Amino acid sequence: MILLLQSDASAPQRSRLQAALSALGLSADAVRLGERHAMVLTSPTDLPADSLARLEGVERVLPLEQRTSLVSETFREGGTTVSMGTARFGGGWMGLIAGPCTVESEEALEQIARLVKEAGACALRGGVFKVRTSPHSYQGGGLDALQRMHRVSRRVGLPFLTEFTDPRQVSVAGELVDGVQIGARHMQNFPLLTEVAALGKPIMLKRHMGAGVDEWLSAAEYILKAGNEQVVLCERGVRSPDRHVRFLLDVSVVPYLKSRIGLPVLVDPSHAAGDWRLVPALAKAAVAAGADGLLIEAHPAPESTRCDASQALPPADLRALMTYVRELLKLDGRRLSDGALAPSADDQPSSPRAASA
Amino acid sequence: MILLLQSDASAPQRSRLQAALSALGLSADAVRLGERHAMVLTSPTDLPADSLARLEGVERVLPLEQRTSLVSETFREGGTTVSMGTARFGGGWMGLIAGPCTVESEEALEQIARLVKEAGACALRGGVFKVRTSPHSYQGGGLDALQRMHRVSRRVGLPFLTEFTDPRQVSVAGELVDGVQIGARHMQNFPLLTEVAALGKPIMLKRHMGAGVDEWLSAAEYILKAGNEQVVLCERGVRSPDRHVRFLLDVSVVPYLKSRIGLPVLVDPSHAAGDWRLVPALAKAAVAAGADGLLIEAHPAPESTRCDASQALPPADLRALMTYVRELLKLDGRRLSDGALAPSADDQPSSPRAASA
Amino acid sequence: MILLLQSDASAPQRSRLQAALSALGLSADAVRLGERHAMVLTSPTDLPADSLARLEGVERVLPLEQRTSLVSETFREGGTTVSMGTARFGGGWMGLIAGPCTVESEEALEQIARLVKEAGACALRGGVFKVRTSPHSYQGGGLDALQRMHRVSRRVGLPFLTEFTDPRQVSVAGELVDGVQIGARHMQNFPLLTEVAALGKPIMLKRHMGAGVDEWLSAAEYILKAGNEQVVLCERGVRSPDRHVRFLLDVSVVPYLKSRIGLPVLVDPSHAAGDWRLVPALAKAAVAAGADGLLIEAHPAPESTRCDASQALPPADLRALMTYVRELLKLDGRRLSDGALAPSADDQPSSPRAASA
Amino acid sequence: MILLLQSDASAPQRSRLQAALSALGLSADAVRLGERHAMVLTSPTDLPADSLARLEGVERVLPLEQRTSLVSETFREGGTTVSMGTARFGGGWMGLIAGPCTVESEEALEQIARLVKEAGACALRGGVFKVRTSPHSYQGGGLDALQRMHRVSRRVGLPFLTEFTDPRQVSVAGELVDGVQIGARHMQNFPLLTEVAALGKPIMLKRHMGAGVDEWLSAAEYILKAGNEQVVLCERGVRSPDRHVRFLLDVSVVPYLKSRIGLPVLVDPSHAAGDWRLVPALAKAAVAAGADGLLIEAHPAPESTRCDASQALPPADLRALMTYVRELLKLDGRRLSDGALAPSADDQPSSPRAASA
Repeated sequence: MILLLQSDASAPQRSRLQAALSALGLSADAVRLGERHAMVLTSPTDLPADSLARLEGVERVLPLEQRTSLVSETFREGGTTVSMGTARFGGGWMGLIAGPCTVESEEALEQIARLVKEAGACALRGGVFKVRTSPHSYQGGGLDALQRMHRVSRRVGLPFLTEFTDPRQVSVAGELVDGVQIGARHMQNFPLLTEVAALGKPIMLKRHMGAGVDEWLSAAEYILKAGNEQVVLCERGVRSPDRHVRFLLDVSVVPYLKSRIGLPVLVDPSHAAGDWRLVPALAKAAVAAGADGLLIEAHPAPESTRCDASQALPPADLRALMTYVRELLKLDGRRLSDGALAPSADDQPSSPRAASA
Repeated sequence: MILLLQSDASAPQRSRLQAALSALGLSADAVRLGERHAMVLTSPTDLPADSLARLEGVERVLPLEQRTSLVSETFREGGTTVSMGTARFGGGWMGLIAGPCTVESEEALEQIARLVKEAGACALRGGVFKVRTSPHSYQGGGLDALQRMHRVSRRVGLPFLTEFTDPRQVSVAGELVDGVQIGARHMQNFPLLTEVAALGKPIMLKRHMGAGVDEWLSAAEYILKAGNEQVVLCERGVRSPDRHVRFLLDVSVVPYLKSRIGLPVLVDPSHAAGDWRLVPALAKAAVAAGADGLLIEAHPAPESTRCDASQALPPADLRALMTYVRELLKLDGRRLSDGALAPSADDQPSSPRAASA
Repeated sequence: MILLLQSDASAPQRSRLQAALSALGLSADAVRLGERHAMVLTSPTDLPADSLARLEGVERVLPLEQRTSLVSETFREGGTTVSMGTARFGGGWMGLIAGPCTVESEEALEQIARLVKEAGACALRGGVFKVRTSPHSYQGGGLDALQRMHRVSRRVGLPFLTEFTDPRQVSVAGELVDGVQIGARHMQNFPLLTEVAALGKPIMLKRHMGAGVDEWLSAAEYILKAGNEQVVLCERGVRSPDRHVRFLLDVSVVPYLKSRIGLPVLVDPSHAAGDWRLVPALAKAAVAAGADGLLIEAHPAPESTRCDASQALPPADLRALMTYVRELLKLDGRRLSDGALAPSADDQPSSPRAASA
Repeated sequence: MILLLQSDASAPQRSRLQAALSALGLSADAVRLGERHAMVLTSPTDLPADSLARLEGVERVLPLEQRTSLVSETFREGGTTVSMGTARFGGGWMGLIAGPCTVESEEALEQIARLVKEAGACALRGGVFKVRTSPHSYQGGGLDALQRMHRVSRRVGLPFLTEFTDPRQVSVAGELVDGVQIGARHMQNFPLLTEVAALGKPIMLKRHMGAGVDEWLSAAEYILKAGNEQVVLCERGVRSPDRHVRFLLDVSVVPYLKSRIGLPVLVDPSHAAGDWRLVPALAKAAVAAGADGLLIEAHPAPESTRCDASQALPPADLRALMTYVRELLKLDGRRLSDGALAPSADDQPSSPRAASA
């Protein structure tokens, strides 16, 4: 860090500052920056910039090094692939995860699972431990619903993930799932992240609708620090004053992240828009911007559902969308990781080019 | 709910809609609203408005009843009082909770506790289970630090609260505390809220920096639904594009809430501003707007702290602020619930008038 | 409008309300909505909902009709086309407008104009009356620069537009331009909009970075009301707390608008991202979402420019982007309105399908 | 500016960078900052940081000097006073400007003017050139209404201001007014600001609801650069996702600005809240935070008004508020500049202390 001194800092003031730094166990070089005096810290320190900014004579603290982190070390040209069973995301693979908002009857779920697989999904999603704004809303089907989803997943041949909301769910339900979703509202629930990370299964970390990119990546850092690198990020819209959509989908975060980190980046247009009619256009935009996957709510009879009816895409629209997406992927030399074509471990797309290049 | 039909809905369409509603187990009256046809549901339903909006022939769903909730039933003229040991908030009492960001040594904490009590605080705060954006930041002193804070609290004679971040902390640490803080990032961690509510101790629920008022009150509703009515709300600034402050303090939420619910409303100017120099003005504004309490970070040597140094208020500034606040409270006929004057159970302020009146 | 009465409104109260409405010259039908009483206004009124909501006994005012506006009447299936010289936007045509932030020397501008035309642009942009946040920044080249741009436009064979910032510019500079840009910061400068509208030339209306969609469409309504229907809208990002981009590009506004109005919708990824490296991915996303045009800053030597250097796209990147965009458009059955292929008046793309379908 | 070089910048790269800077006419000192190389510019430059950041070998550009501006030179301890006729703002004076949203009949306006003067206002406000979101809304009474307001002002003995929206209004209407309001939506209408500044009368510059503090101060800088220092700033709420208020009042901007600049800072709680019931609490908060003035919409019969009925404060509430405000001001040693007590030029409050101290 560089401590930029006040423009009128006198020599005695500068000596006192040197002494104050020494007292905190820090060494520093004095330098001149044009007409200004500054101190450049040469010893590593735990003390944050704002502590140093309160020292007498300091005007501002300029950061010198950016925080290097486990997340930024994942970066490699072309991206990396995270697998969840036969599903793949990143490194040239684009995968669709689809399913209902909430798991209801086994028959209904199986019907949906077959429809989304047929449309091109590589994985199934469905909520059993719901995070509902109101305690009076339906709270999900719990462990019973999870077992129904597990049976359907195996029968239909689609891996699945579901959201965990409590660290105590990991021991009772962790065995059953192929992957775990950390929902937006739990993005900074670090005890949950740490416990889920220890399961060793793929984790989809959604961005909180009120979180900056740095906070999101720092949350991913908690998972990596716990020893689990199978992380996919999922953008689902940020809170904004705009009322034509529920949340504003941040498409720019896709190329921003793809140029900095290797973790696959997915996009959830359903929760962003809150309106199924906008979902296809947003999904196309996400893939064109380079997204490594889509998370889409689909339901054959949305008007009868107990949650989020307005955002569920009917199966015919999902199929039409995926026809377009397959064409889009060809323009980038990328491939769809669909359930029809269960890819084997060495089955790489021929020429993975970065979509944002 | 009122289903407003499309302007060109024909008689056969209206019949089909009636039939579709019957099939969902719903009864409805047909009415005319000016030139438009509409259906008014007469049976209660679990189905959300957005499910009904997908029925054929429906243009929009107009809400007829506002959700009545446990939180809105707490409302009474003049507000209600929540006590935490000798500290009181609401119903004419304004209380200051102050302390360091994080609990470090027992000696340092005791010094701070005595300074804030002398300045007029009625309760002590300090973090032991920290929620840090980065896993590489200091994560708090844990149970050891909590025991230090408990000893200091008893020696100095100030009740205290601390944040819980994991439902599993309740059984091991719940006995030790006088109250529990639910931090902004855990506002919608409903398993945590439910577990903490069962402790039966006062809970301070901070508003997430990205949450609307409805979401905040719905989170409080979870606590009330779990049988615990000792809830105080705490506004701590919302995320905004503005860069002159870390978070934008929403002062308007104080009179808005005071006219709708009875739960005390506190304000935390320290985390909002992120700059101690702005804290006194914001604290005065909060009290003038009718806040039932303040949560302020204070430290005698902020430059040596391991977290949030830029927002800790030096003790002399805290004392000056509280001198002003005492005068402000007189203008409203309210009283400071300070530690010097440990109030007894029947000790009500003479004429509690609503500050926003 | 429907006036929903307070749940305990008595018969005398309802009579008094009827009388109060009569006194304001309004007639109303009394209806029952389930257990609630309501009044449905049957006469048109100028009085806003919030005036009526203050009448005694009224709990809330429910809007019955949405405001029908000139803008919403522009809607037709497949969209409409706005032409500016040989350039076309909407109705199956996608057009690229490109150029420098600010017009500097005639030679430099001509070089850029040739490069962007070659890349596929159908029109040239460049600022001469600049809107600069600071009065100490370069304010643009004024009328001289406009004449340089006019000469270059004619020599190169590309129509051009530039921003007007003052109603007094219309009479002195209106003759010279092919189209006028209303910049984001002047979106609600209604005297300017009205004066520019009277020119009768195409207008590109950018969305203010702090404006909702309703405000944007209402600004367009001012232009239509002044008798000019040649309006194209341009999304350029909204102000948000996020710091990885200058403004958050709202891609969702493209399909939202395309399903409601007929005016072409353009996207400006350069000002949104503020970083040229993000521009190609955002441009692709915009086209995939159905945008009718792109506005992109391009410059062969960005490091020497006097404004917005970080967002200018080098020509090679622009060419690569447009190669991709041409392929994208084929997937929708849309065509690029480029400068190489000056389209004649009846030259329609074969099968314009809505991109968002 | 400091150019921080890439960590692996070699000696030949550093030489090439020196040469590139020379070619741009810039001189620079090479320095070491810890383990990093850097160049410190020693010649002033017009080139922005983002141009320099594109030079080869540069990683980041660190700003060294903050922009010194005319606005920041206005700062002095205790603030400065701006007078408009007998009304005063800043330097220990707090003034209330009140009146209707829009000027209707002369009788109605005179009644309001007398009521607000009696309540403690020192100036009258009222719109005649309205900025209405929709072209179908009432657009104000124009010059006729302005002449009515001028007559009422003189009869009642209150100076007044009104909003100008078009530079061409200055020559026809500038003579009549005591001061000019620049409304939020015109904050960055720089031709308007420059023209109004030349009138030489006091200007109230409102903050755009989507503008950061830097942009607001830069707009004020345009006025000062045009030679007019009689500027008062007015905060009126920022656009936010929150729906309990129309705009989120940024109280923190008051102490933030008071510690940096000398221009008086006013607060408009009426347009922020959009609900008259919240206005008193927000007005108290603003004064407690140190605001130099209030701008409040008041009307004796809000339900009959043609605009913004929901925010007009009834006269009895305004009187009650001002009684409280007078007490608040005493706590700071400040005085109310009211119309009853027309202050003479040398009439300073006895001990102006900064409210935020």
